[in-house]
Amino acid sequence: MAARGKGFQPSQMAQGNMPGYFRSSDSRDVNPDLEAERKTASFSVERLTTMLDGGAENTKTRRAVEAVIHSDPEFNRENQYFQSQNERYEAAVRKSVHFKEKMQQMGWSENGPEITYFYRALGGDLAFNVHIVFKNSILALGTDEQIAKWIPLADKYHIIGSYAQTELGHGTFLRGLETTATFNISTQEFTLNTPKISAMKWWPGDLGRSATHAVVFAQLYIKGKCYGMHPFMVQIRSLRDHSPAPGVIVGDIGPKMNFENVDNGYLMLQNINIPRENMLSRFSEVLPDGTYVKRGSDKINYLTMIVTRVQIIGREVTPMLMKACIIAIRYSVVRRQSELKPGDPEAKILDYQTQQQKLLPLLATAYAFHFMTAYLHEIYNKGYTEIKQGNFHLLPELHALTSGLKAITTECSTAGVEICRRACGGHGYSALSGLPSLYTKLAASCTYEGENTVLLLQTARFLVKCFVAVHSGKPSPPSIAYLFSMDSGKCQAWTKMDFLKPDIYAEAYRHRATRLLGNAATKLQALVQSGAEEYEAWNRCTVQLVQAAKAHCHYIIMKNFIDTVEKLRNEAEIQKIMKHLCDLFALHGIFSYTGDFLHDEYMSGDQMDMVTESYLDLLAVIRNDAVPLVDAFDFTDESLNSALGSYDGHVYRRLYEWAQKSPTNQQVNQAYENYLKPLFQNALSKL
Amino acid sequence: MAARGKGFQPSQMAQGNMPGYFRSSDSRDVNPDLEAERKTASFSVERLTTMLDGGAENTKTRRAVEAVIHSDPEFNRENQYFQSQNERYEAAVRKSVHFKEKMQQMGWSENGPEITYFYRALGGDLAFNVHIVFKNSILALGTDEQIAKWIPLADKYHIIGSYAQTELGHGTFLRGLETTATFNISTQEFTLNTPKISAMKWWPGDLGRSATHAVVFAQLYIKGKCYGMHPFMVQIRSLRDHSPAPGVIVGDIGPKMNFENVDNGYLMLQNINIPRENMLSRFSEVLPDGTYVKRGSDKINYLTMIVTRVQIIGREVTPMLMKACIIAIRYSVVRRQSELKPGDPEAKILDYQTQQQKLLPLLATAYAFHFMTAYLHEIYNKGYTEIKQGNFHLLPELHALTSGLKAITTECSTAGVEICRRACGGHGYSALSGLPSLYTKLAASCTYEGENTVLLLQTARFLVKCFVAVHSGKPSPPSIAYLFSMDSGKCQAWTKMDFLKPDIYAEAYRHRATRLLGNAATKLQALVQSGAEEYEAWNRCTVQLVQAAKAHCHYIIMKNFIDTVEKLRNEAEIQKIMKHLCDLFALHGIFSYTGDFLHDEYMSGDQMDMVTESYLDLLAVIRNDAVPLVDAFDFTDESLNSALGSYDGHVYRRLYEWAQKSPTNQQVNQAYENYLKPLFQNALSKL
Repeated sequence: MAARGKGFQPSQMAQGNMPGYFRSSDSRDVNPDLEAERKTASFSVERLTTMLDGGAENTKTRRAVEAVIHSDPEFNRENQYFQSQNERYEAAVRKSVHFKEKMQQMGWSENGPEITYFYRALGGDLAFNVHIVFKNSILALGTDEQIAKWIPLADKYHIIGSYAQTELGHGTFLRGLETTATFNISTQEFTLNTPKISAMKWWPGDLGRSATHAVVFAQLYIKGKCYGMHPFMVQIRSLRDHSPAPGVIVGDIGPKMNFENVDNGYLMLQNINIPRENMLSRFSEVLPDGTYVKRGSDKINYLTMIVTRVQIIGREVTPMLMKACIIAIRYSVVRRQSELKPGDPEAKILDYQTQQQKLLPLLATAYAFHFMTAYLHEIYNKGYTEIKQGNFHLLPELHALTSGLKAITTECSTAGVEICRRACGGHGYSALSGLPSLYTKLAASCTYEGENTVLLLQTARFLVKCFVAVHSGKPSPPSIAYLFSMDSGKCQAWTKMDFLKPDIYAEAYRHRATRLLGNAATKLQALVQSGAEEYEAWNRCTVQLVQAAKAHCHYIIMKNFIDTVEKLRNEAEIQKIMKHLCDLFALHGIFSYTGDFLHDEYMSGDQMDMVTESYLDLLAVIRNDAVPLVDAFDFTDESLNSALGSYDGHVYRRLYEWAQKSPTNQQVNQAYENYLKPLFQNALSKL
Repeated sequence: MAARGKGFQPSQMAQGNMPGYFRSSDSRDVNPDLEAERKTASFSVERLTTMLDGGAENTKTRRAVEAVIHSDPEFNRENQYFQSQNERYEAAVRKSVHFKEKMQQMGWSENGPEITYFYRALGGDLAFNVHIVFKNSILALGTDEQIAKWIPLADKYHIIGSYAQTELGHGTFLRGLETTATFNISTQEFTLNTPKISAMKWWPGDLGRSATHAVVFAQLYIKGKCYGMHPFMVQIRSLRDHSPAPGVIVGDIGPKMNFENVDNGYLMLQNINIPRENMLSRFSEVLPDGTYVKRGSDKINYLTMIVTRVQIIGREVTPMLMKACIIAIRYSVVRRQSELKPGDPEAKILDYQTQQQKLLPLLATAYAFHFMTAYLHEIYNKGYTEIKQGNFHLLPELHALTSGLKAITTECSTAGVEICRRACGGHGYSALSGLPSLYTKLAASCTYEGENTVLLLQTARFLVKCFVAVHSGKPSPPSIAYLFSMDSGKCQAWTKMDFLKPDIYAEAYRHRATRLLGNAATKLQALVQSGAEEYEAWNRCTVQLVQAAKAHCHYIIMKNFIDTVEKLRNEAEIQKIMKHLCDLFALHGIFSYTGDFLHDEYMSGDQMDMVTESYLDLLAVIRNDAVPLVDAFDFTDESLNSALGSYDGHVYRRLYEWAQKSPTNQQVNQAYENYLKPLFQNALSKL
């Protein structure tokens, strides 16, 4: 693979009175410690990249998009770490509008692969993401007429829409939303209201400053009767001057942990009248006389939730974990610290076992999640086809699976990015490392699109249902059938090498998931039998139910990794290193949750010691390919936007160069002028 | 206790066209759900507060300081979440200078308790923290003459100093620092140089924009021979106009994950000459003829490191964990979500077992760390007295203990704050909740003043040394003697109630620490005996050595909690609730590391099930006192600076009110003017 990083540019350096080492001739070179790591790769990085992209054609398209994006100054993110919330938002809008033009110019279609690559190249640093949800909700919930009216406008950004569901007082529990829409037969209008402060819409993206319209979810009332939540199209700002419509109070919710590019907003509605046609009516309609008509099944809406979660894992979560691994691993071979062997030069920090233990399991996890995404796309497409044919039986399984996997992948990746950040020591705390913003952004994914604990309990509820069904003789859905297969009762490993056999560790994971589910379900039944009300019994088991759901997801991810490795028969070198990563992923899981495997003596302490030894041995093996393994993710320097993680490894010079551009070095020091100058004058006579 | 929160102020609300619920009459009231929690406290909150403060006199002084600070508009932090890095820095300088005046005005001494309370009231949002380290280094390393020259100036802020140790390429490994100081006999000067880019000083606080001087650590060279690291006083900026001294390149390192109030800086020195007298010479001196003289023992310097770590735990870490608990627990009884019992009103989220499992162990941990701090102060004072008398034998033990405890408390608290943040769902992601900044600030503590993994390995090295010594018949230092006591081999619990006996769980923790240390030390010896070089053997055991060090620290904290509870005999109600918290802390630890206790069958799976049941039972018990337990920490609303955590519980109205002040709602929307307006015009004719 050619060096895809942008070489260190001496011309961009502050010049003037600089010492000689800033004018040395090694610009465009790669740091020799980093270069050495690449020379000993056990496999072809380019072939692995191609495989990860899903074929050479995709790699080509992706790189072409990256070349277009990175050569366009409008998409430059260099100053991102210095920008205020207002500046970040403005830049995001500018880029999004510019991209729309670019797409037309390049002939890229709205649903083409280029958009995905564009998003990847810019790290999602854009506006109008919820506008897409707004469009999708019209497409899913609107009639053909409604689609024909609104979608062309939305496609061209002639209107910008938000999806106003969440309220100050309600996120997870949608039935509890308090905004009302009351139908008035005499005027043929709905009147929308925010009846109390907790009913204010709060958090919807693109709402705070951009949106002209919103799909507002409200409780529908007809003649005093409540028909539950329905979607309504509401114009919230003037198309002429952007002022809020009369009766609309709308604004931005202020600073957040990250996502300064998004104008998350609030919205209060005071007697807002909209025509009857503005209720999105694919699945239910209010007739002019106030008759409420329900039509068809809206089960298909679950698909929206499912596909959103699959996209979160594939587009948001896994790439961010990959980026953090790239940054931390490259830095860990450039950074040298302390003597490992007395008298030797200081060691690369990646040569310390503790550093390997932090980073390499995360590298394996990034691969595991990438392969998981491919699998999810596959089963989603299968489910989608069946559902389109009116066959909904896969829906609960798909929903349970994606809920749990969204929770697990967001949680592990968020924790993982932070481990990477800390593994870079002090410099990982600098925003210029790129790591703090990866963390603060990814952390949101643990909450949005379903709070993780709530999601895991949904998975658990499905598992318990199946557990009860299977135990009363009914068949199990395929993805969880493994939970009900025969069990040997004891782990069959005798040496540490046995733990490198996928059969051995897969069986251990299977046993653990089965036991945890069985225990939780049994406790639940026992509580109910001893007289507890069902809701109370459920609540008293939730800590253990969450554990069971996690163990299930952990098995699914690990098993899919095994299956993926098996299919690599024609790529011997890649298969070999992927097998190591799969082993590491699996053994790290056992090493991290030893109690789960020891509890019923499925494994003995001696066997656990073998796991530990095999696991530690693997760290040393994978360490040798660590840099090629992150290079294969093939993120550009511009996309990483990290002083520590660039392809060329010139970390110290880049930290210095970037710091020069910080506003803290470019504005008059008012604190000195106002507060310190008078104090320092007192020392003049004494020094 | 009187309500110490500032009531909700309707006068601060945006008025105008607001719906009626913003003008309702419940301002100054406390949210009824929160109020109800306070009425059922099983103990006196005021008595507990007094106990935590270390006596009624302290509580009185603290509240007096808080009253002074919070009534002074100069110390207002209301806009903190909206400020840029430049604004935060300027505000911090302003407050620090103003505080110096305030101190004189109030007659508070430099070493009085008021400073601690001041720092607590402002959440450390100040400048010149490293200036204090600068002063301390002069006091510790300077001669009496040097102290007399520099300290009075520093005390009055007539100079501001930084402590310039860390370099771009070196943090942990001090011996590797590359800055040089070469003695020139003919001029009687030292010449300081930054010989390469990695030698640039990087990170020192107060350096980037404030400092006039710095204590610079450099390798001392005399006649070509290196004498190692020494401290030199260097003037880096003009006292007249603040411009960098000739040959000095100095600036700010740019944006960070937090600490915008601190101007972390960089510093390059090019042939900077300073007089011979500017080497801080308490422990070593260069005579005019170039003779190097060492005098006395500089072991006492370790005390600086030790006291700094004790202060981190007591001043930084524990209070931040407490604040996060206050915010999350108060919010969790105001927030209602979903039906627990079908048909009932939505439940307080603290009534969900999963929410209790997230927050209540952290509440127990905050208490455990608070008690640990008191204990550390005690043994530090004892050690200090002995060391002053020339008796250094306690030093290694004290160093090992504080190293490990700093690592454990920072790691657990950082993770804990993030758990609190996520437990507040979406609103925990808003900066206005106060939780994101607690996290991003506390996260730094895992790296500064000793990277945690490095610190734990220092503790481990001490433990291994003692292990070897004891096994060759030598005595053990008192704090780790427990590791070498008799062992029953099996846990003696028969019912879940047995696990509420401190003897039972203390013994389990003891056994675990002993086993983990024994295993790691034995593996280390075996590797060396099988021919591995010592450094290599050590590296291959580090993952397990870290585990052993953690288990040791965990024991120490848990045991100190037990001892503290025992001493509360005269406070029956408080003792009772503290005993519950102690039990919870201990059982949560076992529940979280089940494998450690199951590994050698010290506990059986059945016993672990008892632990789980006792642990879950305790959650329900402590839940009833959760709000009084956080109220007792007695942080003012101003100090919490959280829209979710205020004493009165008016979370939604405060979120809304604060959002109004955000710059995103106060500036002209340039993105609309520049990019969106022309697009929206196209929709005018169609809608």
